[in-house]
Amino acid sequence: MGREMRWWGWGEDAHAGSISDEALGWLEGELGALDAPSGAVALDAVRLEDPRLPGAVRDRFADILRDDRAARVLHARGKSYPDLVRQRAGDCTGAPDAVLTPRDHDEVRAVLEACAGAGVAVVPFGGGTSVVGGLEPLRDGFGALVSLDLGALDALETLDERSQLAVVGGGIRAVELEARLAERGFTLGHYPQSYEYVTIGGCAATRSAGQSSTGYGRIDELVVGARLAAPAGDLDLRPQPASAAGPELRRLVVGSEGVLGAITRVALRVRPVPELSRYEGWMFPGFGAGAEALRRLEQGGAAPDVARLSDEEETRLGLGLAGLRGMRASALRAYLRARGVPGGALAIVGWAGPEEGVRVRREAAVEALRDAGGVALGQPAGRAWVRSRFHGPYLRDDLMDRGVMVETLETATTWAQLFTLYRAVGDVLRGHAPLVACHISHLYPTGASLYFTFMARARRGEELEQWAAVKTAACEAIVAAGGTITHHHAVGRDHAPYVDAEVGATGVAALRALKRELDPAGIMNPGKLLPSP
Amino acid sequence: MGREMRWWGWGEDAHAGSISDEALGWLEGELGALDAPSGAVALDAVRLEDPRLPGAVRDRFADILRDDRAARVLHARGKSYPDLVRQRAGDCTGAPDAVLTPRDHDEVRAVLEACAGAGVAVVPFGGGTSVVGGLEPLRDGFGALVSLDLGALDALETLDERSQLAVVGGGIRAVELEARLAERGFTLGHYPQSYEYVTIGGCAATRSAGQSSTGYGRIDELVVGARLAAPAGDLDLRPQPASAAGPELRRLVVGSEGVLGAITRVALRVRPVPELSRYEGWMFPGFGAGAEALRRLEQGGAAPDVARLSDEEETRLGLGLAGLRGMRASALRAYLRARGVPGGALAIVGWAGPEEGVRVRREAAVEALRDAGGVALGQPAGRAWVRSRFHGPYLRDDLMDRGVMVETLETATTWAQLFTLYRAVGDVLRGHAPLVACHISHLYPTGASLYFTFMARARRGEELEQWAAVKTAACEAIVAAGGTITHHHAVGRDHAPYVDAEVGATGVAALRALKRELDPAGIMNPGKLLPSP
Repeated sequence: MGREMRWWGWGEDAHAGSISDEALGWLEGELGALDAPSGAVALDAVRLEDPRLPGAVRDRFADILRDDRAARVLHARGKSYPDLVRQRAGDCTGAPDAVLTPRDHDEVRAVLEACAGAGVAVVPFGGGTSVVGGLEPLRDGFGALVSLDLGALDALETLDERSQLAVVGGGIRAVELEARLAERGFTLGHYPQSYEYVTIGGCAATRSAGQSSTGYGRIDELVVGARLAAPAGDLDLRPQPASAAGPELRRLVVGSEGVLGAITRVALRVRPVPELSRYEGWMFPGFGAGAEALRRLEQGGAAPDVARLSDEEETRLGLGLAGLRGMRASALRAYLRARGVPGGALAIVGWAGPEEGVRVRREAAVEALRDAGGVALGQPAGRAWVRSRFHGPYLRDDLMDRGVMVETLETATTWAQLFTLYRAVGDVLRGHAPLVACHISHLYPTGASLYFTFMARARRGEELEQWAAVKTAACEAIVAAGGTITHHHAVGRDHAPYVDAEVGATGVAALRALKRELDPAGIMNPGKLLPSP
Repeated sequence: MGREMRWWGWGEDAHAGSISDEALGWLEGELGALDAPSGAVALDAVRLEDPRLPGAVRDRFADILRDDRAARVLHARGKSYPDLVRQRAGDCTGAPDAVLTPRDHDEVRAVLEACAGAGVAVVPFGGGTSVVGGLEPLRDGFGALVSLDLGALDALETLDERSQLAVVGGGIRAVELEARLAERGFTLGHYPQSYEYVTIGGCAATRSAGQSSTGYGRIDELVVGARLAAPAGDLDLRPQPASAAGPELRRLVVGSEGVLGAITRVALRVRPVPELSRYEGWMFPGFGAGAEALRRLEQGGAAPDVARLSDEEETRLGLGLAGLRGMRASALRAYLRARGVPGGALAIVGWAGPEEGVRVRREAAVEALRDAGGVALGQPAGRAWVRSRFHGPYLRDDLMDRGVMVETLETATTWAQLFTLYRAVGDVLRGHAPLVACHISHLYPTGASLYFTFMARARRGEELEQWAAVKTAACEAIVAAGGTITHHHAVGRDHAPYVDAEVGATGVAALRALKRELDPAGIMNPGKLLPSP
């Protein structure tokens, strides 16, 4: 079982970062004076109904059940901005009536069958890191709801070194898996920003991408087999390197977001631990020039394993909040001016693999980066990024304490449409927030992702309405510009209204047909993924 | 519209190869005396019922309908061994009542809706190259059946050079697409053995792999968008480089084999035409040593774009039938003896791309091939393979003329299981056929494909029973050894009984639910993909 996060924010107390006075000063220059720090209400003050799980279900699973306040509140939501606004305000009405922690696949199956029989909604829970309302306890007419915490399914079941294939329990944490694999000389190489807490089943269910996915592939490509416990039966897809035996059903399990069943086992492609990892910073004259360099690298088959390019505003934001992660901002500016690149767009690029391979691939890429006007900032900037790459959500807690609305959203489209989409979404966000930053972080031959961060003073007492207005406007802009509604955060509740625009009425009908077949009682994660009928 | 193949065999008359006397002599040494050549019955002698398409459907689509003998017989089946046995014998009972050739998506939709209303079964037809009974006109209780030839949907609709993305009609032939792309400097790079006739929609529907798929990716990976005309509605999936918006529905279109609808549009990843293509032959001391070298290359990220390794028997067969494609067998044997590799396993490896990239990648691979005991045979062997790589099916016609049962089947599994599967299937096949050959032709990090060819004297008059016995035994061996029932030939009719073993009862139920939703009348390609209830 992994560590549990704070119920009102990200991470554990021991890990919490604290924003520097210098960064705070910079931010107040941008947003105006911020509030004095104010935390969440006390756990005892959180509003919570009495649990109302049917007695028969409660008794049957008594030895894997918790319904104490701490467990119910922690499992009530994920970690999106609106989730945390409500948690911090002590609003946990509708929280799960109980948290069930089955110990193996058969116990998961028993829970699902009992819940289907008793009319109890089930919300599968992995690392609890959803930022799209994927854990929202929506009852959809059911009288009770349980959180199905899969954390006890945490085995590395087998590691086939010859086939570079690991079979794991769906509830194993990514961190734990990496530690277990490392003992044998292997790695999965999947590092979403939520890496410290996510489970592998959760990554599969939400179709996640990691910070090295340009090189290592999305979870879609790493999953070579899966077992889904659905109320109607087990969908057990053996690991196969490739097949032409009909539609690829494992791609139905990946991205199923708990609405079809719970992922109890995943077979994964793994790799040898890289001999060498090398990360470095580059500064480009502008976002456009940097993006063009990355496109050429990717389409030429020479992309770095990590390729992340901030636009000018995110570059400025990064310098303002952290200096250049290890390089003092003033020294950096002087250096860049001397090289003829004032301001600009910061890129972090990284390679991992055998020493010789990293050397050869880096040389080829460096030439292309220079040709595009890039200026090398060296490895300190890269190492600083590696050190801080999971820190964003901690910073968000600090900012929320001080009355800042801080949120992220992401999309992807073809290279030809990328800057149209970038401008459309940016324009909309700037109508709601003074600070709007963006980066490209995942490259594909046909296109790339865009990841936006925006900040504004929160309207105290109206945080949810303020957030909904900007979120809705941004989603509509993404749809209108032809972007995908989500590149790696998943659909959850927040993006469900836009799935129709994504896959059309027939696509939604196909998904509903699958759900009716696998979950005829409709107990699995109601209100997620599929738009309201 | 593409060229039409002979109704009783592969290809067109102009292309037909003829087996050499030397090869024939070698083969008689293996199989015993063969028959004198005997062709198919005359077209006029083919047994065919009168067409019985409902008059309303016939009248409505009169301008896109053919029901002459030639059209109906050609569209009656694909090109599997049992298909050709029956065609050659003049057995076309059950042939489609008509061939409809809609000119655009809307006309496809109109046909599907009319057929659903009138209870007419529909078999989508692309290049007509199925070798798994995918075009078998099974009526499943419907009173009439039409072949839906998609060949008129042959446009290269758009080519977005910046995003390296082409949008094409589902009926465009691969050959035609390559020609049109080449004018603009691009290529798809998808070369199944049926390349000269296949359509892109057919490749997508059957989840095909090409001879360069180790480097270029399977069709699964090349399809970035698709439009499926289903009787219940259009599933229109815009091209997206990547998304986390629920399960990847385009992977439901890929592999759908006409049972959910007809693919009218495909968006494809394309690449620049390679500066250089280089193919060469290598001889390994044995199949095991060669496979080990390929595994290391693939897992090290250094696999050639084409990597094809024959086992000892296929190597011997290839030498017997063709010399070493350009190198005289006696000279080759002398050369190999001098290098200390008597007999052995032949590999063809190839690279395509920018000159410098090919040079660098080849150098790295060559070192690994040498380390595994490989002996270079040079580019002539590679070029000979390129010249003859689509010739297998023509040779089959010659052999069938002389009373040889010749058939292929293919599977894939993990590297750890590969040789267990190889031995299990080989042992079964050798119980039915004196000549059993195998090659590995597609590499994946977690495993590889196995492609078997087997030959025996046909039992005249009992060809279908003879074939069914060996096919059944081989499929059962594949399932028992944990291989996929098909790596790239698709399911069709022949593999449908084994889909249950592949994806389990819940997987089959999920596929049936999709079919009920998209094709409620059940008119689309009855009896394919899904096992009999």
